[in-house]
Amino acid sequence: MPLLVVKFGGTSVGSLDKIRRAAKRVGVEVARGYDVIVIVSAMSGKTNELVNWVGETSPLFDAREYDAVVSSGENVTAGLMALTLQEMDVPARSWQGWQVPVMTTSAHSAARIEDIPTENLNAKFDEGMRVAVVAGFQGISPEGRITTLGRGGSDTTAVAFAAAFGAERCDIYTDVDGVYTTDPRISEKARKLDKIAFEEMLELASLGAKVLQTRSVELAMRYKVKLRVLSSFDEQTETSGTYVCDEEEIMESNAVSGVAYSRDEAKMTLISVADRPGIAAAIFGPLADAGVNVDMIVQNISEEGRTDMTFSCPTDQVLRAEKALQGAKAEGSINYHDLVADQDVAKVSVVGIGMRSHAGVAAQMFHALHAEGINIKVITTSEIKISVLIDRKYMELAVQALHDAFELEKSA
Amino acid sequence: MPLLVVKFGGTSVGSLDKIRRAAKRVGVEVARGYDVIVIVSAMSGKTNELVNWVGETSPLFDAREYDAVVSSGENVTAGLMALTLQEMDVPARSWQGWQVPVMTTSAHSAARIEDIPTENLNAKFDEGMRVAVVAGFQGISPEGRITTLGRGGSDTTAVAFAAAFGAERCDIYTDVDGVYTTDPRISEKARKLDKIAFEEMLELASLGAKVLQTRSVELAMRYKVKLRVLSSFDEQTETSGTYVCDEEEIMESNAVSGVAYSRDEAKMTLISVADRPGIAAAIFGPLADAGVNVDMIVQNISEEGRTDMTFSCPTDQVLRAEKALQGAKAEGSINYHDLVADQDVAKVSVVGIGMRSHAGVAAQMFHALHAEGINIKVITTSEIKISVLIDRKYMELAVQALHDAFELEKSA
Repeated sequence: MPLLVVKFGGTSVGSLDKIRRAAKRVGVEVARGYDVIVIVSAMSGKTNELVNWVGETSPLFDAREYDAVVSSGENVTAGLMALTLQEMDVPARSWQGWQVPVMTTSAHSAARIEDIPTENLNAKFDEGMRVAVVAGFQGISPEGRITTLGRGGSDTTAVAFAAAFGAERCDIYTDVDGVYTTDPRISEKARKLDKIAFEEMLELASLGAKVLQTRSVELAMRYKVKLRVLSSFDEQTETSGTYVCDEEEIMESNAVSGVAYSRDEAKMTLISVADRPGIAAAIFGPLADAGVNVDMIVQNISEEGRTDMTFSCPTDQVLRAEKALQGAKAEGSINYHDLVADQDVAKVSVVGIGMRSHAGVAAQMFHALHAEGINIKVITTSEIKISVLIDRKYMELAVQALHDAFELEKSA
Repeated sequence: MPLLVVKFGGTSVGSLDKIRRAAKRVGVEVARGYDVIVIVSAMSGKTNELVNWVGETSPLFDAREYDAVVSSGENVTAGLMALTLQEMDVPARSWQGWQVPVMTTSAHSAARIEDIPTENLNAKFDEGMRVAVVAGFQGISPEGRITTLGRGGSDTTAVAFAAAFGAERCDIYTDVDGVYTTDPRISEKARKLDKIAFEEMLELASLGAKVLQTRSVELAMRYKVKLRVLSSFDEQTETSGTYVCDEEEIMESNAVSGVAYSRDEAKMTLISVADRPGIAAAIFGPLADAGVNVDMIVQNISEEGRTDMTFSCPTDQVLRAEKALQGAKAEGSINYHDLVADQDVAKVSVVGIGMRSHAGVAAQMFHALHAEGINIKVITTSEIKISVLIDRKYMELAVQALHDAFELEKSA
């Protein structure tokens, strides 16, 4: 029988009523002739409660015990979902991660799935089970202990199951009805995308669009899992949700598919650095060693053997960055006059696989920002993305201006 | 190293503070040189919440899914307890039932422990772990699914671990400070017993004293596990709690150790049964087939070939009993004029291994009840117990009168 993987996030299973509604969706797929693997999150709020208990008990907790405690929320939902399906006369049973087993690395709280043997579930499908309800977010380490995959990990569980079982599709039910050209809270012209390429989704996910865990998109791209994001609260129609798919499946595309933003960026500037060959390595080596995720880098033109070096990093890594650079200065490996951190910045990005074939996207972007009097502090580009750092107060204006400039309210 | 098993009930781990207090008790035993296996219940209220969710989802639930859901509460406590001990620098880790593994029958929701292999825990004790925190109430079936042991099952988990690991003692921490001569809410003269024999505890447990699960006492008796019941809220002293132990360890004993009562009894009378050889089998066979737990039986003297037959059973089985007897009458296997159920009764019992060597206990009991004008409806006796069925309104009075008559406020 053809197989679907269907994942419900915490808000979609936040009460017995919502579990019932989710189960009905699954029932529809079963009636259509699909066997279904349902991946469930914990009921909304439950994981936070457990995480808080662990934090209160032990601030520097043993991650193995954290995982043992925090994984319990998904087990509850899995059992309740199986019972709900049984009440609807759908043959179903629940599976905890270790029962499948979902085999992961030993990196507790941030484990990676290594293998999902299909024998146990397939044996039950062969016996007539129509739905396997699997607790998301969790697995078992080679040492036989429970692991978790990090926040949002149930998305990754879902995609990994879809890959392992060769599912026809992986549907991610959440509290939004798809992926938008930008955040609808910022631009009322934001339009739901029917399709988006894996690469674009990856850029959007890592740029702060919180629809899917980044790792789940990477996995889907690698294993060519057809992914769909849709709302568990709306009626399903032909055009429900957003397909995340291979570039080839997107016939026609705009130059730009979406505008993303992030407030969690800080700009750091090293003023008057002694410029010499190897200075970049001398600066960014210690930062990497300190675990600072440097994003954008700009080096000014050197004058009289000195230059300014600017980079951006997440705001919560500013202290770590300062410490690393002061240490390098104290050791004498770099030399600068001053180090200035500016946390009053934001990053705005345009993303689109269409950039590869459309020339002049960068120029169009800079022009649109200039027309609004927005000064660009730093620029980075990739093949399908252009990001700029601007004053935070202009963030919403920039998003709206770019959405207008690239006419994202119109479909391709 | 010598080993203790220590069990904490739901009220003893009902909050992070209470878990901390419980962990301190464990720390004291570790400091004394013991390795400790800690068995934990779910935080008070959690199991009820989960049970209610299951009931609301599916009134006639799949017991396998019930077990998967309901067992999660103990896993949370186990992890939190391990973290708390680690914070106190006590090397500890948590174990879920399937990790030990606690091997049980497949009778979901009422499984019996079949085996507890000691290898996994002992390997960790050998590596320097001092405390194994084990989620109580749960195990794993031969099919690899999670099972639970029935309400109060964590007591049984504790005793089974004590037996399997040859523990020096099994301490059951609860919200009362021991076993009393009777319920202190009924008689203010109730006295905490320092020691009680397994057989007496069994009679008291099955008679409604809710301190220990009956099965745990049976297990302790069979494997000679030295059991102690004590409060997790009081200071520990030399005479803390009550030891449940072999008869031989109790040097001197009163004729009666305790007075127990139960409100959940009903008296059923078959009026004017046609008396003939085999009539008892014809009556109680169908009752047994219907799952009715008949407790006391009285047959009146037969007059003119007819007799009255009276028995008692739990109140919630009255309907089932009526149905079974009406069925037998319809089939013609028994014949009676009327069937009368009286739910307005209570059972009061005196229990004591001393009865074996003290004559006249029954006479003394009947005399004490008669002196208060309490009419006895039915009587049963065992070697160490005498039970009477009386009008429910006299229950408290009877308990107090018997407590006085046998001078239970005085120790032996």
